[in-house]
Amino acid sequence: MITSLQNAAIKNIVKLYKGSRERRDQQLFVIEGARELSLAIQSNYKIKSVYVCRDMFGSTKYPDVLNSLAENIIFDISSSVFEKIAYRENSDGIVALAEPKLHGLSDINISDNPYIIILESVEKPGNLGAVLRTADAAAVDAVIICDNQTDLYNPNVIRSGVGGLFTVQTAICSSVEALEWLNACKINVYAAELNGAKQYQTIDYTLPSAIVMGTEAEGLTDFWINNSKERIKIPMRGKIDSLNVSVSTAVITFEAMRQRGF
Amino acid sequence: MITSLQNAAIKNIVKLYKGSRERRDQQLFVIEGARELSLAIQSNYKIKSVYVCRDMFGSTKYPDVLNSLAENIIFDISSSVFEKIAYRENSDGIVALAEPKLHGLSDINISDNPYIIILESVEKPGNLGAVLRTADAAAVDAVIICDNQTDLYNPNVIRSGVGGLFTVQTAICSSVEALEWLNACKINVYAAELNGAKQYQTIDYTLPSAIVMGTEAEGLTDFWINNSKERIKIPMRGKIDSLNVSVSTAVITFEAMRQRGF
Repeated sequence: MITSLQNAAIKNIVKLYKGSRERRDQQLFVIEGARELSLAIQSNYKIKSVYVCRDMFGSTKYPDVLNSLAENIIFDISSSVFEKIAYRENSDGIVALAEPKLHGLSDINISDNPYIIILESVEKPGNLGAVLRTADAAAVDAVIICDNQTDLYNPNVIRSGVGGLFTVQTAICSSVEALEWLNACKINVYAAELNGAKQYQTIDYTLPSAIVMGTEAEGLTDFWINNSKERIKIPMRGKIDSLNVSVSTAVITFEAMRQRGF
Repeated sequence: MITSLQNAAIKNIVKLYKGSRERRDQQLFVIEGARELSLAIQSNYKIKSVYVCRDMFGSTKYPDVLNSLAENIIFDISSSVFEKIAYRENSDGIVALAEPKLHGLSDINISDNPYIIILESVEKPGNLGAVLRTADAAAVDAVIICDNQTDLYNPNVIRSGVGGLFTVQTAICSSVEALEWLNACKINVYAAELNGAKQYQTIDYTLPSAIVMGTEAEGLTDFWINNSKERIKIPMRGKIDSLNVSVSTAVITFEAMRQRGF
């Protein structure tokens, strides 16, 4: 059992939590939580090592998560060591290191009638995670992140996404590449913006559709506004002029799913 | 100009930020940001004092916010003092102290055809704020918080709500009181839960309606499940079994608004 806070592997986990550069250089990221780890395993992420605090792991709702892993990559740790590497509240005693995926646009497989979420320059890892969680619930074909400004493997993406990063097809590319791909796939593009010409619920999403969401601070760039089939908006009836991007994404996406009969 | 970090008023602001007990004892809370302050003023919150860092305030989008305030409650502060009391990123140089309201159920005014959001035991201030922001956008009649577990004036409620706390009628009471009030107002009650019998989009929200949302960890208590007209659910089509409570609330609420023709 690892009991020393000075253990090199433990110190490295802390580094990987904190730094996107560290994650990129080592090609490793941290998964905290048995549910998230189990979703990563199901999605064929390569798990390199797992650190388990048995006392806390006893109360997990996902006790089977260790079953599919090789014993020689599982390390027992003390509760004080776990405390040092745990990031979340109410954690269930498990932290793993895994290899990132590539997230190329060409790896995305879409259905016959796709529904895609495009995020332009999303800034806050928490918002990205929240969108991925919604994308999982709605079973969208893919989330495409254009002109990316956040590390997909930031622990806040995984935490607020409760594993949506693993279950949802996710690609990173430039806006130009995304638009070419959407056009090649014959997908209708709807740009969400505060000054959109049409209310979101008047659009027919039963055809192949992509919604494009901008940042909260800046909205969408002209590139997407000029290259969309329609500019759409969610009516704002109060005194505050915007919604959180994960909320806007969910409202439009679940309207699309409602129209599609789900 | 206040330039000392040891100034008693400045040290008190830090205390009020941090402690719900401090806020209750002093009957004061902190509003950061010109937009939020301007919404609080519009909603007749009593502003007791305002601290302004003029350098930063120069770039605010809400320069008029100081116009309606008495000069003798406005204090200039240096940028290092502002840094000490600022809580958010990208703050615009203004922090105010205001008196909380009472949030009694009897103060709520509803329309002829009300739509109400009930939150049972919401735990995370960020989630409560996010719901209030959505409630503002959808112009719901009121948000009622039952068996409250979080301080309404926690800075995270104000921050993630971007001022929705001030613009939305909000009451705090017990679940029993809320149900009696809903019944007296002849409002149909829909309990949102993962095992709901009906999909949310099959409900007719054009009649007086209230949706009841539970905590993410525990869901709703039997009290609301047993006392609702219908148990409703948002279909989960992915591998993760739940949505963030602010996202669920928004999906159901905007479906209700769609049905109501907004």
